[in-house]
Amino acid sequence: MTEFEPMDFADMPRFGGVATFMRLPVVEDPAEVDVAIIGVPWDGGTTNRAGARHGPRGIRDMSGMIRPFHPLTGRSPYKACRVADLGDVGVNPTDPVDTLARVEAYMKDVVEAGAAPLAAGGDHLTSLPILRALGRGGAVGMVHFDAHSDTTDLYFGTSRYTHGTPFRRAVEEGVLDPKRTVQIGLRGSRSSPGDMDFARDAGMRLIAIEELFEIGVEAVSEEARRVVGGGPVYISFDIDGLDPAYAPGTGTPEVGGFSTHQAQRMIRGLDGLDIVGGDVVEVSPPFDVAGITALAAANLMYEILCVLAPAVARRKSPG
Amino acid sequence: MTEFEPMDFADMPRFGGVATFMRLPVVEDPAEVDVAIIGVPWDGGTTNRAGARHGPRGIRDMSGMIRPFHPLTGRSPYKACRVADLGDVGVNPTDPVDTLARVEAYMKDVVEAGAAPLAAGGDHLTSLPILRALGRGGAVGMVHFDAHSDTTDLYFGTSRYTHGTPFRRAVEEGVLDPKRTVQIGLRGSRSSPGDMDFARDAGMRLIAIEELFEIGVEAVSEEARRVVGGGPVYISFDIDGLDPAYAPGTGTPEVGGFSTHQAQRMIRGLDGLDIVGGDVVEVSPPFDVAGITALAAANLMYEILCVLAPAVARRKSPG
Amino acid sequence: MTEFEPMDFADMPRFGGVATFMRLPVVEDPAEVDVAIIGVPWDGGTTNRAGARHGPRGIRDMSGMIRPFHPLTGRSPYKACRVADLGDVGVNPTDPVDTLARVEAYMKDVVEAGAAPLAAGGDHLTSLPILRALGRGGAVGMVHFDAHSDTTDLYFGTSRYTHGTPFRRAVEEGVLDPKRTVQIGLRGSRSSPGDMDFARDAGMRLIAIEELFEIGVEAVSEEARRVVGGGPVYISFDIDGLDPAYAPGTGTPEVGGFSTHQAQRMIRGLDGLDIVGGDVVEVSPPFDVAGITALAAANLMYEILCVLAPAVARRKSPG
Amino acid sequence: MTEFEPMDFADMPRFGGVATFMRLPVVEDPAEVDVAIIGVPWDGGTTNRAGARHGPRGIRDMSGMIRPFHPLTGRSPYKACRVADLGDVGVNPTDPVDTLARVEAYMKDVVEAGAAPLAAGGDHLTSLPILRALGRGGAVGMVHFDAHSDTTDLYFGTSRYTHGTPFRRAVEEGVLDPKRTVQIGLRGSRSSPGDMDFARDAGMRLIAIEELFEIGVEAVSEEARRVVGGGPVYISFDIDGLDPAYAPGTGTPEVGGFSTHQAQRMIRGLDGLDIVGGDVVEVSPPFDVAGITALAAANLMYEILCVLAPAVARRKSPG
Amino acid sequence: MTEFEPMDFADMPRFGGVATFMRLPVVEDPAEVDVAIIGVPWDGGTTNRAGARHGPRGIRDMSGMIRPFHPLTGRSPYKACRVADLGDVGVNPTDPVDTLARVEAYMKDVVEAGAAPLAAGGDHLTSLPILRALGRGGAVGMVHFDAHSDTTDLYFGTSRYTHGTPFRRAVEEGVLDPKRTVQIGLRGSRSSPGDMDFARDAGMRLIAIEELFEIGVEAVSEEARRVVGGGPVYISFDIDGLDPAYAPGTGTPEVGGFSTHQAQRMIRGLDGLDIVGGDVVEVSPPFDVAGITALAAANLMYEILCVLAPAVARRKSPG
Amino acid sequence: MTEFEPMDFADMPRFGGVATFMRLPVVEDPAEVDVAIIGVPWDGGTTNRAGARHGPRGIRDMSGMIRPFHPLTGRSPYKACRVADLGDVGVNPTDPVDTLARVEAYMKDVVEAGAAPLAAGGDHLTSLPILRALGRGGAVGMVHFDAHSDTTDLYFGTSRYTHGTPFRRAVEEGVLDPKRTVQIGLRGSRSSPGDMDFARDAGMRLIAIEELFEIGVEAVSEEARRVVGGGPVYISFDIDGLDPAYAPGTGTPEVGGFSTHQAQRMIRGLDGLDIVGGDVVEVSPPFDVAGITALAAANLMYEILCVLAPAVARRKSPG
Repeated sequence: MTEFEPMDFADMPRFGGVATFMRLPVVEDPAEVDVAIIGVPWDGGTTNRAGARHGPRGIRDMSGMIRPFHPLTGRSPYKACRVADLGDVGVNPTDPVDTLARVEAYMKDVVEAGAAPLAAGGDHLTSLPILRALGRGGAVGMVHFDAHSDTTDLYFGTSRYTHGTPFRRAVEEGVLDPKRTVQIGLRGSRSSPGDMDFARDAGMRLIAIEELFEIGVEAVSEEARRVVGGGPVYISFDIDGLDPAYAPGTGTPEVGGFSTHQAQRMIRGLDGLDIVGGDVVEVSPPFDVAGITALAAANLMYEILCVLAPAVARRKSPG
Repeated sequence: MTEFEPMDFADMPRFGGVATFMRLPVVEDPAEVDVAIIGVPWDGGTTNRAGARHGPRGIRDMSGMIRPFHPLTGRSPYKACRVADLGDVGVNPTDPVDTLARVEAYMKDVVEAGAAPLAAGGDHLTSLPILRALGRGGAVGMVHFDAHSDTTDLYFGTSRYTHGTPFRRAVEEGVLDPKRTVQIGLRGSRSSPGDMDFARDAGMRLIAIEELFEIGVEAVSEEARRVVGGGPVYISFDIDGLDPAYAPGTGTPEVGGFSTHQAQRMIRGLDGLDIVGGDVVEVSPPFDVAGITALAAANLMYEILCVLAPAVARRKSPG
Repeated sequence: MTEFEPMDFADMPRFGGVATFMRLPVVEDPAEVDVAIIGVPWDGGTTNRAGARHGPRGIRDMSGMIRPFHPLTGRSPYKACRVADLGDVGVNPTDPVDTLARVEAYMKDVVEAGAAPLAAGGDHLTSLPILRALGRGGAVGMVHFDAHSDTTDLYFGTSRYTHGTPFRRAVEEGVLDPKRTVQIGLRGSRSSPGDMDFARDAGMRLIAIEELFEIGVEAVSEEARRVVGGGPVYISFDIDGLDPAYAPGTGTPEVGGFSTHQAQRMIRGLDGLDIVGGDVVEVSPPFDVAGITALAAANLMYEILCVLAPAVARRKSPG
Repeated sequence: MTEFEPMDFADMPRFGGVATFMRLPVVEDPAEVDVAIIGVPWDGGTTNRAGARHGPRGIRDMSGMIRPFHPLTGRSPYKACRVADLGDVGVNPTDPVDTLARVEAYMKDVVEAGAAPLAAGGDHLTSLPILRALGRGGAVGMVHFDAHSDTTDLYFGTSRYTHGTPFRRAVEEGVLDPKRTVQIGLRGSRSSPGDMDFARDAGMRLIAIEELFEIGVEAVSEEARRVVGGGPVYISFDIDGLDPAYAPGTGTPEVGGFSTHQAQRMIRGLDGLDIVGGDVVEVSPPFDVAGITALAAANLMYEILCVLAPAVARRKSPG
Repeated sequence: MTEFEPMDFADMPRFGGVATFMRLPVVEDPAEVDVAIIGVPWDGGTTNRAGARHGPRGIRDMSGMIRPFHPLTGRSPYKACRVADLGDVGVNPTDPVDTLARVEAYMKDVVEAGAAPLAAGGDHLTSLPILRALGRGGAVGMVHFDAHSDTTDLYFGTSRYTHGTPFRRAVEEGVLDPKRTVQIGLRGSRSSPGDMDFARDAGMRLIAIEELFEIGVEAVSEEARRVVGGGPVYISFDIDGLDPAYAPGTGTPEVGGFSTHQAQRMIRGLDGLDIVGGDVVEVSPPFDVAGITALAAANLMYEILCVLAPAVARRKSPG
Repeated sequence: MTEFEPMDFADMPRFGGVATFMRLPVVEDPAEVDVAIIGVPWDGGTTNRAGARHGPRGIRDMSGMIRPFHPLTGRSPYKACRVADLGDVGVNPTDPVDTLARVEAYMKDVVEAGAAPLAAGGDHLTSLPILRALGRGGAVGMVHFDAHSDTTDLYFGTSRYTHGTPFRRAVEEGVLDPKRTVQIGLRGSRSSPGDMDFARDAGMRLIAIEELFEIGVEAVSEEARRVVGGGPVYISFDIDGLDPAYAPGTGTPEVGGFSTHQAQRMIRGLDGLDIVGGDVVEVSPPFDVAGITALAAANLMYEILCVLAPAVARRKSPG
């Protein structure tokens, strides 16, 4: 088994070389990796400002800033297991239904090959086909960072598949366990007094931004660990969970959010869980400035990787 | 019959007031107008950089710079007939099929009410439902300014309705007469040696950018008039016909285009034709700078209006 | 009495339609509304970077993101009373004196018609003519969020009316009660050691940013409530009260400010006061990025609306 | 007599050092120079997008790119006479009347000291106080590059002094000779069919953009020389004479204009005239991109300097 | 021998996938290709605005817009010979001397492997090590598009290797034949009257922008063909040869240049020459807008490729 | 002895006049000042995104917003001693070795003239030649705000002088006392588990961002005072110590940092120390938005000035 390593900074400066996630090699066959970083260049589910289709490239570019070793643990995720850039899923920007099918087929191949997916969106509808792939054998739990619950039923009267509906669909389809789901950072004006009833009634644990600021990020992580428990869990991070000051480059910015530092700490607090995959979504480079949103996304992907890679390693060597 | 007039600059500066097309009043009922300026905030057919969904607002904002009287004729289109801002068509950004139906239904209402539509896109798929509305009683001709022919058959293997296919569909559906169609400004690398065969075989007159620069804009207008002849004709202006220096804010910029001045002169050269509607499409404000693309689009809409309004007036008072 | 409702998201996406405040209808006659949202597209009092003249349009555009119901109370301000977009005041960008007169006349009409004004600036001089309209029958109190006290006497040796002088003038003219005025968020290098003497000597309560961070936002709101007491009170929010990270698009950014979340909580803490009007000023779109400043302003206007509308309703139905 | 020289590139790169016009030294006393380059950081007369107040700094920054010797003549204007940066006129951004008086007083001092003013605006109202200073002893002629005639009477019903009125006022005051005035590049939709009647009736020679493109820039220069003849002449260049592709950073962009190269050639064609001063106005850095508008302005100032400096030298040494 | 083909648009939209030049595969060994497209992410020789280090990534991103077939010839360069993306040269941004050695060693390997280099800069110093590699067996000729001659001797008193000196060094080192060199588009103010003496004295043919506009682009191409004759020739394209309207994203923009369309036609006019390599340099993405400069560069690289690939094919199969 | 005063706001608005640091006069001879504010327009040591060469001009422009008197103390640093803008050091952007020598020679002149340097970078390598000048008579202590330790040994295998190595070199050269050095705000992924071993082994006190957030900024300042003690101390502020939300315009942004307000308070907590100089570095205007990074830098320079000027005054009048 060969580990993949990021391109060495001594050989190539951060801004040089073909831009890949974390400066990792591009690998085509998911069977060669344990963690597959995958771009989903898609915003067909977006009901607001578009541009998330450019997210994977934007994140790849800024991810060149990430070095291998974690500042707190001193460990590299690339030593824990095989991690590489699998490229992007081929999508159809003019047909959301077709794209959903393409992404789902792709993700099933990845999961069947034994690789854990770490996706860079694309809009939040991206999470649905990944959950379908991961949850086929049984619903997974989820730690979900976001300003929005994304559990609406229909948009524009008829649309069941948008970036505001993935987790309702996932629950309905039995691939997401709402009782093992926690949503963190919820806020913003609401379309109806009951627009989160589904999430609440289904048993999700909702942590609004006010609660987050009141109890603090350590308590949030602890509560998330309590909710998801010991089973398989997915981490989904919508970049609009961050305040727009930290992440202007997104389609549905919502003022009053948490900071990137708080996000880092909340993800770090998930170490030890049985994480099976993750995503960072809704980065829209046309609205970004100086790449700071893409940089935040790249860092959050790295933090997820640093809790995902050990979980993968544990599953491979349970002893 | 009441004419509508743009808000007076003496009462409200150009940057003030609720932004409407040309500072005209907003009117809901198409029966109250002769020319209906309509926004189609949609980029569901876009295969490249998105953002045309923000086009109508961007154009409305910059159209406040347009004054009523034409610099060469000294006439105001608002004296020729009733012109107003009809608002936007309600679209579904997550469902192109649904949106096509919505726009078509809307445009049929407009046309049936006796108003000539002047649309602000939105991507170029916008033109198809308008042509369906206008061409129901018989195929119309078209003067089409664009870097691209937009007569491809399928995208991504399966998609028949994208911003690169509207005029093939329109010909197939019998609402556009290819023999009375001229495409002006074609250029750019091509996906296959035969990618314009459909257009050519169908009988469209293709004027590539090299011919345009060689024969000059007067000759282009003259040739366009010869091709479309005396029947009803639609004017479709894709802003990427302009060089990216003049119109950076678009999804598929193509270097080596014509200037805004040349565009103005080509449209002016169409005066006297039996124009039944028009559009300016593919303005993508997230990629614009200082509003210059939206400003160009607003000016080109104004130029189209200045040849459309007299045609409308002539039809109303044929004597 | 007809309530006005924002355009439904099911019919028109957030980025669609003619941009009005909160997607509300445009109403001309202030007698038809209880709360009149009014744009004042003006920066004639600006002594630093200009551009606030574009504020109303920028805020209207981003206010399409605001949904009707408040996340904490679950209530909609549009159910409490009649709220609409009154359009912009016609200003004269080349003559501050003329503009002051125009805005004052307009605001008096609004107040006399029985509507409470909620203004979107424009620079902070906007507040003076509104206070003149509201305070004619007796000085009002004020909760003032800002980095600056705006109680300077003269600018450039001779100018009495600038965005740095409105509240000194308002006190001198007897329309603002300094003893019922609290200024929140003051900071930044000062032009003289005594540049806030007027405010302090007049009896205003000054809460510098250091005190705000020390005592916390709940205590600030409580102190504001203590200061203004039970009488009529105006809320003025200069967007530069926010840190430039949260509001880069302003003319006199001052580092070291509070966050949008803190601002939201401080305004929410004013619920129950006898609020008679408000404004959000100094948004300068040419310096904004991805609309985040305008979005913050739209949200803060919404928060003010959510404490203003109930106050209006209480005054109408005191029982 | 000491000539002033730009800072040497061998000692300091173009982007280094305190930014002054053309890297020239800052000199306070106009008596020490023959040509005084002066910033007028002012947009109080602007009826559209503001920001010209930042023009002088923007132009100073980009003017560091200009080298001393002219590409066609091989001569340096700094060898012809003494040229320096006089700094900015102290203006009052909140009071146009006060500012007009300040600029006029300043310019009179400059002219009385024997220096020829070369101003960087600031909006176009800047030209009026300069013409007052230059034309006190007798009306001067003018070569005026602009999309607009700037000879309107009143704005907003009452305002006589705006960036759209300076040359009407100058004619009325007898400081500008309309019969020795030529306006080049006029275009754009018009507020009334007769909105250029004053200019035409007063005897100005108007060269609309269509004529310019038809006869070519050499013929335009020749016609300009014919019109202004042998007497003293002022050169006023509104950057919006350029097409917005070349100069996006301006307040009233007007599509369909001429190129920077054409502008260079038209100014070069004025060599030999008895030029007494000049200006480049309406550069608005907040709307600029990558400094290209300011760079164009700096180059056009340099071209004016290269015809102004020899004229100054000739007047000093008529032999 | 396997030809490489760009990723198919039917499988992956233009904005998707890991960004490589022209969507070509990444190949490590130059022996596998006939034309090696190479990024040189370097601006260590830049004396003005930096940022060309980001050029290769910027160009790769926008080159996804280029389709395989040429609009005029209908041919694909990828059918003529094997073309791939070789990745970037590893550079040292803090040591120009070290970097020069690295790039030269890399390019020698490429040339010795039998591949023709087509480089994306980086600044113009990039050309020197390529010429050293290509000219070792004998000086090559050059067609050089640029606003500047780049034949200065020293910068800052001591520096021999900057982006303003490469072609003087190349002549001195005997790798560039000045008598077979033509420089096209020269313009801009000059640092001394004799700053082009070296180029002229060495026998280079200088075509200033005035001559270009006077004789037209066909005549320029013809003159270039005459100058370089039948021997091996290099094409170097500094993006600042374009007017800043077409290419704002560059370090030393020079107003008054030619258009992208003119550039395309001049390169097309070089078809049939014995072209041995080429470069497009000085693209600085931090100063670009909407990617239009990178898009122009990508298109110009494509045009060079379309004359280079046939030349390579001819040398391989001289029959 | 004449004190220098900033240009009066009553005479010239903030955006007017030749841009100098804090609106202070430009003085050439360091002997005339007690504190010399100096620009170092240089990014030759930058291994990531460039642009810090434009830092001094960017900071000068925004520093016009700073007023003389401190908000907490009410004192002006310009009353404590003579402070002026010394202009920029002449650098060689193409030769880091040459530039290091130039800056060192310049700074030695400043120090020998008796002035305390306050530098505006430029990248962080700027600090090394200043420390050489200040530490010649004995190693100085340092309070260092930064996301990075900047104590790496070599970059790209061979480079000893980059923006990531200055403090290792300074320790090795004996001009910086590591035992009296504290680094504040360290964070971010690391290139090796031991990449801070040098700093730690040498005895520097490292305060990672986690510790900073845990103990609070007062405790950080107190700890800094304890570490540096009573001897001479230098303050070096890398703007990337701030979170990218507060300072997007920098070359190596690192998410998860502290706020500008926290920075202000930490610097204020250093009052009373024997400060001998300082710098604010790594501001890169091409990546800035609305000038907020430059504004933050200007404010932090002002805060440093407000603790530096009294220290200078104390040394001059020890009684």
